[in-house]
Amino acid sequence: MTTTLLERRFSTLGRHSPLFYDEPIHLVSGEGVWLTDADGRRYLDAYNNVPHVGHAHPRIVEALRAQAATLNIHTRYLDDRVVEYAEALLATFEPELDRVLLTNSGSEANDLALRIARQHTVARGVLVTDFSYHGNTTLLAELTTGLATREPLGEHVRTFAVPDLDAPENAEMSEQAILAAALERVDRALGELVASGHGVAAVLVESLFSTEGLPRVPDGFVAGVAERVRAAGGLVLADEVQAGLGRTGNWFWGYQRHGVLPDLVTLGKPLGNGHPLAGVVTTASLLEEFGSRNEYFNTFGGNPVSAAVGHEVLRVIDEEGLVARCARLGSQAREELGALVRNHERLGPVHGEGLFFGFPVFTDGTRTRPDPGTTKRLVEAVKSHGVLLSKIGPAASVLKIRPPLALEDEHLPVLLGALTDAIAETVDQ
Amino acid sequence: MTTTLLERRFSTLGRHSPLFYDEPIHLVSGEGVWLTDADGRRYLDAYNNVPHVGHAHPRIVEALRAQAATLNIHTRYLDDRVVEYAEALLATFEPELDRVLLTNSGSEANDLALRIARQHTVARGVLVTDFSYHGNTTLLAELTTGLATREPLGEHVRTFAVPDLDAPENAEMSEQAILAAALERVDRALGELVASGHGVAAVLVESLFSTEGLPRVPDGFVAGVAERVRAAGGLVLADEVQAGLGRTGNWFWGYQRHGVLPDLVTLGKPLGNGHPLAGVVTTASLLEEFGSRNEYFNTFGGNPVSAAVGHEVLRVIDEEGLVARCARLGSQAREELGALVRNHERLGPVHGEGLFFGFPVFTDGTRTRPDPGTTKRLVEAVKSHGVLLSKIGPAASVLKIRPPLALEDEHLPVLLGALTDAIAETVDQ
Repeated sequence: MTTTLLERRFSTLGRHSPLFYDEPIHLVSGEGVWLTDADGRRYLDAYNNVPHVGHAHPRIVEALRAQAATLNIHTRYLDDRVVEYAEALLATFEPELDRVLLTNSGSEANDLALRIARQHTVARGVLVTDFSYHGNTTLLAELTTGLATREPLGEHVRTFAVPDLDAPENAEMSEQAILAAALERVDRALGELVASGHGVAAVLVESLFSTEGLPRVPDGFVAGVAERVRAAGGLVLADEVQAGLGRTGNWFWGYQRHGVLPDLVTLGKPLGNGHPLAGVVTTASLLEEFGSRNEYFNTFGGNPVSAAVGHEVLRVIDEEGLVARCARLGSQAREELGALVRNHERLGPVHGEGLFFGFPVFTDGTRTRPDPGTTKRLVEAVKSHGVLLSKIGPAASVLKIRPPLALEDEHLPVLLGALTDAIAETVDQ
Repeated sequence: MTTTLLERRFSTLGRHSPLFYDEPIHLVSGEGVWLTDADGRRYLDAYNNVPHVGHAHPRIVEALRAQAATLNIHTRYLDDRVVEYAEALLATFEPELDRVLLTNSGSEANDLALRIARQHTVARGVLVTDFSYHGNTTLLAELTTGLATREPLGEHVRTFAVPDLDAPENAEMSEQAILAAALERVDRALGELVASGHGVAAVLVESLFSTEGLPRVPDGFVAGVAERVRAAGGLVLADEVQAGLGRTGNWFWGYQRHGVLPDLVTLGKPLGNGHPLAGVVTTASLLEEFGSRNEYFNTFGGNPVSAAVGHEVLRVIDEEGLVARCARLGSQAREELGALVRNHERLGPVHGEGLFFGFPVFTDGTRTRPDPGTTKRLVEAVKSHGVLLSKIGPAASVLKIRPPLALEDEHLPVLLGALTDAIAETVDQ
């Protein structure tokens, strides 16, 4: 049956629409952190960040139903719900970030934020890290470094490397020297952008550097990048599609961990717990400048159903205390996982924040060469033990653990048990 | 209370987020073709095309609820619902158009379709009409001619005028001569694109030319454009965000009215009856080419909730016989409206198809100068008689009537009565 479904999928969505696992999982239902497949097998979801407060959360479903049964319309009429949601959402930001444009996806949000930045700076140039992903529009494809796109890197794009304090090449250097070298590379990229005539519109930073493989960056790195970009006339865009909404535990928004106040913040994935909801948060003056010059309208953006769902997600996060629990459970998980991987010379160390963490897999105990093959086998083995996770990083050699914030204490042993068994079966073999 | 809500909206969404009417309507609920405001006033909705099968349709709400309560996840796992929906959607197209990429908005769809076209043709050039709108991403802003964007028209963009058989300047010409002149202008635009070195990637055609003001185009115009673009190496992109899903009554997709088979079809607005759902329909070979070269993924695109909703919209259209009724009611409405405007030398003639129609408003009986002021007053007066509609066209002087397909026979007299009164109060004064 799964084979037939797969063939029907190929005949409609095509053969290249990405699928996980050697044998794709055919899912039929979800609840909290659990997913069930067509054979009745249950999986602990330690991968998905979109169902932030849990799969099929009854309060989110009811908010969706109640509002859809009442009214769903665009924002060219007045509506309480979008204003109430915007107020609640903006209350989670610093007072300077007091305006929001609601969209339907993180891609729309990043594309729009860059439009705003380019118009404000009258510059086209963009700085991104050398292994990153910010969305699938044409504009964003031209600055994608972290996955395959046919578009070459734009002539207006320059990249910089994100330093990892634990990288082999940094073993002999002090944190200060690593930071200085990394910022020098940023200076060079900025200098090139200016020399090219494109100028500097913005830097895009995803504050966990998750596509990049969760490197442990030196203190002051992101702040140093922001300072240099601003000195060159550019804006700072924090891409919070991955790191936001409490995911990092000790901070509601990921950029706060770096002590930086961005000019533009883009939101996505978890915002509607699966409902297509995203947005750009910025300052009144940047929005005023953009709005006065462009007739920007987004048909579905900010509709009352999306607003009701987004608002209920914020309420559930607050009332269920999910951010504090994310910090506590994340810390505990990383500690226990650290103890586990310390026994394996080819693994580790554990990186990440809150409930987004992982560890690199190497070919041997010198920890110099990444081992994507073993990482892939590890992900498959963890699945065979009933837990879903994935891999990231330039070599696809960093285990990626990113459960919904609905994860509770009782689920940690399930996750760690599956990992322990899977490591024994793959890494230790 | 409305004033306070408006101020709160300004303080969160900004002052430039578009609003209808001198005094915006504060809506609280909707049902079928009716909307209710905060003062309990009911309006016949003769404007909104997104709530295609009717506001708060119980079957759509239940499909949304049931699936959200079961599972909402991305397409990197296998799922029945997205495949079933894709099959049902593709069954409404010609057999050559047999693949679909699901997105969250018409903007995402048009941006993606152009990415596909540019990669296939290895050309950047785009042809659009001289007063059109295809979405709000940066790529699409650079080819927007129908509303204000800060981005100048791209150097790779050329425009052509859409001929209107009823335009004053065409009064003395035969249809054949009008067609020949219009296609000569297309040839010129294509020649310029080729000479510029950008080549021809695609033409974007919205088959109702609704932003353009619903001109009555000569038979063979769209086919002639398509033929010329293909001869120049470009693809034909039919933007069905407005004209699709039965809106034109006699055709399920608007391009079918023109006897053209596009290479790429983009879908949006009505597809999810308000739920953010859109997509690109194309051929297996174009999708294979794009998919093999790009790791394209859309987090929310094709999720089972969107698929369940989209599928239920198709079922309701079919089971309630909405397309045939749209053809019948649209024809009747245009006939009665024609009789009404014939009595007013400053109005008409009535243009459009199915349930998307309108008529131009002129300053005097010579019907040469458009009258946006009177058109605006007419829209406001119709509102005061409890009916919502709007205006379109380069001079914003064409009345725009585009009710949900949920419109029934009993609603026509309401619409025509309000229009009769409003015309008496504004045009005849």
